[in-house]
Amino acid sequence: MNVDALLTSAGINIFICIILWSLYSILRKQPENVTVYFGRKIIQERMRRDGNFCIERILPSASWIVKAWRTSEEEILAIGGLDAVVFFRIVVFSIRIFSIAAVFCMLLVLPLNYYGQEMIHKEIHAESLDVFTVENVKEGSKWLWAHCLALYIISVSACILLYSEYWSIARMRVAYITRCNAKPSHFAVLVRSIPPSSEESHSDSVKKFFTNYHASSYLSHQMVYRSGTIQKLMNDAENMYRKIAKHNKHISADQICEPCFIRCNFCGGASNTFKMLKNEPGQFEEKPNLAQLGSDNREKECAAAFVFFKTRYSAFVASMILQSSNPMLWVTDMAPEPYDVYWSNLWIPYRLLWIRKIAIRLGAVVFMVFFLAPVTFVQGLSQLDELQKIFPFLKGILRKKYVNRLVTGYLPSVVLMLFLYTVPPTMMLFSTVEGTISRSNRKRSACHKILYFYILNVFFVSVLSGSVISGPIINKLDIISSPQKISSQLATAVPTQATFFITYVLTSGWASLSSELIQLFALLCNFFYRFVLCNKDGPSDFTLSFPYHTEVPKLLLFGLLGFTYSILAPLILPLLVVYFSLSYIVYRNQFINVYIMKYESGGLLWPTIHNTTVFSLVVAQIIALCVFGLKKSPVAAGFIVPLVILTLLFNEYCRQRFYPLFRSVSAQELIEMDRKDERHGRMEEIYEQMQSAYCQFSLTSTDMYEVEASDHCGVVNGSRARDEVKARSAPPTLGVLPLSRIQQAATWISMLLTSQERNLPK
Amino acid sequence: MNVDALLTSAGINIFICIILWSLYSILRKQPENVTVYFGRKIIQERMRRDGNFCIERILPSASWIVKAWRTSEEEILAIGGLDAVVFFRIVVFSIRIFSIAAVFCMLLVLPLNYYGQEMIHKEIHAESLDVFTVENVKEGSKWLWAHCLALYIISVSACILLYSEYWSIARMRVAYITRCNAKPSHFAVLVRSIPPSSEESHSDSVKKFFTNYHASSYLSHQMVYRSGTIQKLMNDAENMYRKIAKHNKHISADQICEPCFIRCNFCGGASNTFKMLKNEPGQFEEKPNLAQLGSDNREKECAAAFVFFKTRYSAFVASMILQSSNPMLWVTDMAPEPYDVYWSNLWIPYRLLWIRKIAIRLGAVVFMVFFLAPVTFVQGLSQLDELQKIFPFLKGILRKKYVNRLVTGYLPSVVLMLFLYTVPPTMMLFSTVEGTISRSNRKRSACHKILYFYILNVFFVSVLSGSVISGPIINKLDIISSPQKISSQLATAVPTQATFFITYVLTSGWASLSSELIQLFALLCNFFYRFVLCNKDGPSDFTLSFPYHTEVPKLLLFGLLGFTYSILAPLILPLLVVYFSLSYIVYRNQFINVYIMKYESGGLLWPTIHNTTVFSLVVAQIIALCVFGLKKSPVAAGFIVPLVILTLLFNEYCRQRFYPLFRSVSAQELIEMDRKDERHGRMEEIYEQMQSAYCQFSLTSTDMYEVEASDHCGVVNGSRARDEVKARSAPPTLGVLPLSRIQQAATWISMLLTSQERNLPK
Repeated sequence: MNVDALLTSAGINIFICIILWSLYSILRKQPENVTVYFGRKIIQERMRRDGNFCIERILPSASWIVKAWRTSEEEILAIGGLDAVVFFRIVVFSIRIFSIAAVFCMLLVLPLNYYGQEMIHKEIHAESLDVFTVENVKEGSKWLWAHCLALYIISVSACILLYSEYWSIARMRVAYITRCNAKPSHFAVLVRSIPPSSEESHSDSVKKFFTNYHASSYLSHQMVYRSGTIQKLMNDAENMYRKIAKHNKHISADQICEPCFIRCNFCGGASNTFKMLKNEPGQFEEKPNLAQLGSDNREKECAAAFVFFKTRYSAFVASMILQSSNPMLWVTDMAPEPYDVYWSNLWIPYRLLWIRKIAIRLGAVVFMVFFLAPVTFVQGLSQLDELQKIFPFLKGILRKKYVNRLVTGYLPSVVLMLFLYTVPPTMMLFSTVEGTISRSNRKRSACHKILYFYILNVFFVSVLSGSVISGPIINKLDIISSPQKISSQLATAVPTQATFFITYVLTSGWASLSSELIQLFALLCNFFYRFVLCNKDGPSDFTLSFPYHTEVPKLLLFGLLGFTYSILAPLILPLLVVYFSLSYIVYRNQFINVYIMKYESGGLLWPTIHNTTVFSLVVAQIIALCVFGLKKSPVAAGFIVPLVILTLLFNEYCRQRFYPLFRSVSAQELIEMDRKDERHGRMEEIYEQMQSAYCQFSLTSTDMYEVEASDHCGVVNGSRARDEVKARSAPPTLGVLPLSRIQQAATWISMLLTSQERNLPK
Repeated sequence: MNVDALLTSAGINIFICIILWSLYSILRKQPENVTVYFGRKIIQERMRRDGNFCIERILPSASWIVKAWRTSEEEILAIGGLDAVVFFRIVVFSIRIFSIAAVFCMLLVLPLNYYGQEMIHKEIHAESLDVFTVENVKEGSKWLWAHCLALYIISVSACILLYSEYWSIARMRVAYITRCNAKPSHFAVLVRSIPPSSEESHSDSVKKFFTNYHASSYLSHQMVYRSGTIQKLMNDAENMYRKIAKHNKHISADQICEPCFIRCNFCGGASNTFKMLKNEPGQFEEKPNLAQLGSDNREKECAAAFVFFKTRYSAFVASMILQSSNPMLWVTDMAPEPYDVYWSNLWIPYRLLWIRKIAIRLGAVVFMVFFLAPVTFVQGLSQLDELQKIFPFLKGILRKKYVNRLVTGYLPSVVLMLFLYTVPPTMMLFSTVEGTISRSNRKRSACHKILYFYILNVFFVSVLSGSVISGPIINKLDIISSPQKISSQLATAVPTQATFFITYVLTSGWASLSSELIQLFALLCNFFYRFVLCNKDGPSDFTLSFPYHTEVPKLLLFGLLGFTYSILAPLILPLLVVYFSLSYIVYRNQFINVYIMKYESGGLLWPTIHNTTVFSLVVAQIIALCVFGLKKSPVAAGFIVPLVILTLLFNEYCRQRFYPLFRSVSAQELIEMDRKDERHGRMEEIYEQMQSAYCQFSLTSTDMYEVEASDHCGVVNGSRARDEVKARSAPPTLGVLPLSRIQQAATWISMLLTSQERNLPK
């Protein structure tokens, strides 16, 4: 691939970007699309449709970019929680580090690469991209110290930036935990594997155990019930009944739009399986018998319960400590937030969890290995000359210049991208089966799997399989069989794959941002509902939560590419800086307008991000070491060794210094929070709230938002302010209306039912 | 090596064994050696010297074997603690599993190996040992299913036995924790990294922090002081003063012997650096000014303290939970037993510990790698033909038959054994520098390092370097460079090394047991003191604690050999059964007579033992897999794969089911123990005991034994019984006399000094 081809590819991408962004700026102004592009605003900020037509509606504009740019971190924290802040911290970190790298490498390393060999250079546009990589430096060149220096600068800057980020995020996490005074999860412990007893029910066992061993701090408990398909149907029917009643009453009063149902159906769980509502209220006029439902449940008690404690500290202690001398019984964990609980996984017997985890890990490894086939195929496309040798019949087609450019410059990345679309749902399925107890944990677990997948399959296999095709056939097996050769293989293969990854950044990176912005699938869904099904309100399902599990690994993969190629092929750096800058704008816009925060992990993703970044740095250093070795520059190679060791020591220090804060909460903070609440006499109120927080069956999205609203009470105080918040964050399925009487009655009935299960201490 | 050579080797070893054991049975009857062979009995059972001469004293006898055999597990538990029981459980487990293996493999596998090839067998004594290994089986033989079946039987029996052992040891550990009512360590927490403050002392910080956050359970605390060389000298002087005073007063009154100082000086710490005492009391008549000493200490407060709590549960909770939002401050751990604390490591600033650990691990790896040289050399000796090719000048010497037999059959193991003697002290040094807070932990950490060393250097390197010499030179590098070849390399090398390991069991195994019994070094020391220095009492220093860190890895290494060679070269199995049976007798005898329990870990070694045994099983299975592959028996190889998976699953299950009990204590037990003490009104008494338990400077061996005596109070109750125990277990350096007035005064002064430091709550 030469500079021309790169420019073609860049040209295509920039063109597509401009088109799509302009299209977006027009589409977002159309009132029909407001559910697609303003899901969050509709729910949380009572945005109203503006139906008037004016000429501005069909002109592209950049105001949204300005608005996204001007959004402060505080606003992001309020909108998307700590997880969103952490997400933008990776983006900002990447922009910073790759800007630094770009400046040094373009000024210092690129000219050295270009003039590395004594050769007559072609015209710049016909020059092969390989000339700009480290491959063009002569063996034993003295100028390799410049590469070494650049790597030192990048590594040191990265470590300094990473440390300051970790420090500030750790502080924010502490603040996140202490900020809110009344999180029910702080007082609750999830107990699993309650030992079966022939004499008493699980509920009695729990009560007996905790009143015996935690008498001073035990408050009450609530069992988890196994609900079958019929239960689910009944819940759905109840939800539907409510919806319809509401619908008929208020539909014409307010012209409020509802968010649409797009791709994250998978993560959203299975509580609402009915998508379409028809206005036939008579059909459902009889309300399902809730009392009947409750008595059924009691028979289906699981060996799991939420136990509530009087103070945060005692709950935390109970969750941390081995309860019984059989470690497989009375297993305690900190409870997830009520709206974060993944109920159906609580039914899984605890004794089966470890074997599920092992099976899932094996499954994930098998999946990764079977994915090698498409990756190798894609790599073949980027090296046409080699491919032509293997399949001679392609020669005729590929002789045409534009076909050749398209195939080498664009097609491989597109094919790879399409294959990669199957990965997130598969990994999410794996994480579900694994038995995680909360939705945020499930997403984090999927995020890890996707990350391993990307690093292994996209990076390492692309690098090595690329060279399998280009090298002689005999070498193919050697790569797998000999680790000693892998180092020299990496040193030769990584620079040669530079071209592929540069185009990958252009296509997969830039294009995916545009598609994120335009939300094509949602747009089509909306169109289908409005104009084919003639439903004027569009799809009336819940909005999306941000897909951290796909976006974080993507950013980290680009980070890995950036670090690895910073000194090998510095041309990738400006492209990456542009990519991360665009991400910054696009994701901010999406956070402000589209995605809603359904649950948050409190920045738990940061340690993963930190470790992956350090891993990327170390990979970059080791590859540089191999390359310097191959270029017969032992001094430069020797200087890299202490850098690797120092980087690893830095990581270990950060692990010691910050990681415990992400794994547990300190006694100091918990006790201070408890004391503050006691001083303000808030405890009674909190206990009352707790009684209804973990309500398994009545926890429709309605209650979810109530909890969420009361949860952000750290920001607003006083009953008036709280009412305001409640009103602002009213349930998404019901618009922004105040709680109606029907809803109150339903909540009251379900509370009554579940309160029978709870055993308040005298 | 042929059967003759093996018989020669076995003959030599049996002969040596009989000689040494007879010698032992005579030597132990001599009153001069009583300090060497009855160290424990002298101290803990007030054994008296019997000076009368009779004919029996010079006749060998086997009564000690009978006595050792008849000792029950309860007695071992009382004498050596849970650690000793765990130690014998490995021995018994090994005897059982290798007896099963021996029966099946000698009946089933050995004939198949011997008649594996259609060949004319020589006379049995001239037959090469290789004929008895799996090497002699034809390629593609149908009879390999018998090997496969034998491996299944061995694996399944091993898993069943391991499970029952883990189960019973876990129960014993729980009993060990709940058995004793007044362990000071249960109520104490070691706090490190107390943040420095310009306004207040560390002691005030600790008081402030714990009265603030653990007000209801905090009892008092005690700072750790940094003591320099002068401090140490002063302590020594004080000890000496006491000793001399005592010595003069009572030396002629009782003819009580004192234990000798032998090889474990290294583990014993540095509190007593003076070995020889001369009877010149006038020289030391002025007692060191203890008050002066105390005030010096106060200025040398470390950032570490022991904090005492009112209940076991609250102490345990405080030790488990992150105290501050900076995880590098207020680091809490469960305190070790007072006599188990490794004081000088408490002075190490906590922030340096992580880097020390990393450095030590690197150091250990480097040590292991540099050890390859002697191991490779030793392997060369066992393959004379190859060695002769490399060094032709050896041919003349080696042509003599007995030299040849000696060199191949005996020398390699002896040389390897001599090299291996340097390993334990080095690893112990590593573990000391690592910064472990207790002696038992230090020993366990050294045990792990020695175990890794043995498995890597003795087993794998012996196997692979052996074949480096025997194979063509070109292959040498391939072994290291290609893991794919390692499997086939293992499959060929492991059976060929059978001869070496068979002789290794004979020499290293059997001979080391005899040397353990005879205690040559201690015997020589004793002789030197008595007859060269004319000191009638022999060396007057402390006795030994059992060297778990050298003996456990040794047993586990033999276990690995047993599992690996069970189906490959079954001839090793009867030798191993004999070895483990002899170990059973010898170690029992040593536990009863020689070693004293200074500190115990409560069976914490078992998880290591369990994991290593499972590892050995899996290694055996994988090697069998490779061998079956090499013998072109894919069916047999295929049947091994599920076995490997099932063994790993079994290990994971045990980890889930039992391991948490070895890492922490359950709330249930702690609370029950607290309640029991409260019911019996013992709490006040316990608090009082605690005040003096962790006394850094007055904790000479005197107090150590007091603590230990009061510690085993679970057995005897009531004040009279306790006095009895106290008297029985009087300090080893002072014989079994009741506490003299001088000693009482010294203890009283030092208690007075340290009590100023403690801050009892009002």
